Amino acid sequence: MRMGRVIGSVVATRKDPSLDGTKLLVVQHLTLDMKPAGDYAIAVDAVGAGLSDVVLYAAGSSARQTELTRDRPVDAVIMAIVDSFDANGKTVRLT
Amino acid sequence: MRMGRVIGSVVATRKDPSLDGTKLLVVQHLTLDMKPAGDYAIAVDAVGAGLSDVVLYAAGSSARQTELTRDRPVDAVIMAIVDSFDANGKTVRLT
Amino acid sequence: MRMGRVIGSVVATRKDPSLDGTKLLVVQHLTLDMKPAGDYAIAVDAVGAGLSDVVLYAAGSSARQTELTRDRPVDAVIMAIVDSFDANGKTVRLT
Amino acid sequence: MRMGRVIGSVVATRKDPSLDGTKLLVVQHLTLDMKPAGDYAIAVDAVGAGLSDVVLYAAGSSARQTELTRDRPVDAVIMAIVDSFDANGKTVRLT
Amino acid sequence: MRMGRVIGSVVATRKDPSLDGTKLLVVQHLTLDMKPAGDYAIAVDAVGAGLSDVVLYAAGSSARQTELTRDRPVDAVIMAIVDSFDANGKTVRLT
Repeated sequence: MRMGRVIGSVVATRKDPSLDGTKLLVVQHLTLDMKPAGDYAIAVDAVGAGLSDVVLYAAGSSARQTELTRDRPVDAVIMAIVDSFDANGKTVRLT
Repeated sequence: MRMGRVIGSVVATRKDPSLDGTKLLVVQHLTLDMKPAGDYAIAVDAVGAGLSDVVLYAAGSSARQTELTRDRPVDAVIMAIVDSFDANGKTVRLT
Repeated sequence: MRMGRVIGSVVATRKDPSLDGTKLLVVQHLTLDMKPAGDYAIAVDAVGAGLSDVVLYAAGSSARQTELTRDRPVDAVIMAIVDSFDANGKTVRLT
Repeated sequence: MRMGRVIGSVVATRKDPSLDGTKLLVVQHLTLDMKPAGDYAIAVDAVGAGLSDVVLYAAGSSARQTELTRDRPVDAVIMAIVDSFDANGKTVRLT
Repeated sequence: MRMGRVIGSVVATRKDPSLDGTKLLVVQHLTLDMKPAGDYAIAVDAVGAGLSDVVLYAAGSSARQTELTRDRPVDAVIMAIVDSFDANGKTVRLT
């Protein structure tokens, strides 16, 4: 999974019908120092993430393994909201 | 999903028979500032996208999860046309 | 899908038995200006592509969605030969 | 698979219910010289890896091929702990 | 598929049980000029490749399409040993 911050959302009224009712969020990738990593993804939200939350998202076919996304044409799903993580002996608390 | 702009189309008369009737579009990746991101994809259009539309496309096996693309050898499908999005507090309207 | 030019082929007599009878081509990625993009792929040919043809290939599990490649350990298949394409208002004819 | 070092872990209480009981580890990619390769992944641990272990992880749908991860929305799984490896005639012992 | 040279192997006694009996090789990516391409993969060997062989490997779910790797958590499999290839009019013989 990759870690990123929710920095916005996408409105798309013309879309594959199977996507009705999904929320499309803009996720900015983050380095372990919490800096923007230069790339972003548009991901379906499966866990009620909000603006500025740090989240994990799964890509590829794994993005279709939630109730909400099963058999849908989506290749990225937010499947967890990060409370904290540690890396290299440093703990980062996010909530 | 990735966001990009439809900048053209591809004509291919010799192709896998399962692709008959699909429209192949050239999608230029975009940064969140709407600048070309240096890479492009050729994607099947599942939503009636037109030239210069900003779209979302799904890649990998997820590209086969629309009626049009099921069981076809395609790894990218346009599954939404973006009306607007916001990122970092700025709203971008596209239609 | 990605667009590339067929620049060669690979001979491999020791291989997974399921690959017998497949043709392995070397595909040079292309920019939209038809310049080499710095990377290449080895792809199974499903459409009778020839040397110097510009082709589309599909990657990942989608590469197994042709008659020829079904259930085979291949992650890239040439599924179309490009006749022409247009991008940014310019048309490129290839045949 | 890619090789990396376990450098931390992630705590996420709000997540897809299917992820309950999984351990999410931060894996720093490594070059063959055991230097950080500039990218990281968050992977589910399927083999009891500990902090500073060098591990292999599988990505994509293959990440769902362990007992622990089957049908879960995860795209990276640690499936082996590296004891040693050799590359270019040099052996690196890790345990 | 990508082309690379077998430059070593990995020993991992603690691993997902389904991986027992598989051989894990270190594959250095190659440019078409046979130079190291800066990245490597750890791949399961399905064809009896040896040290310094130039091989093709398939990634993703396609890596599970050999007898040896079916339903295993592996995302890269060596499925062919390259005898020779030609690219841009030059032939490279490897055996």
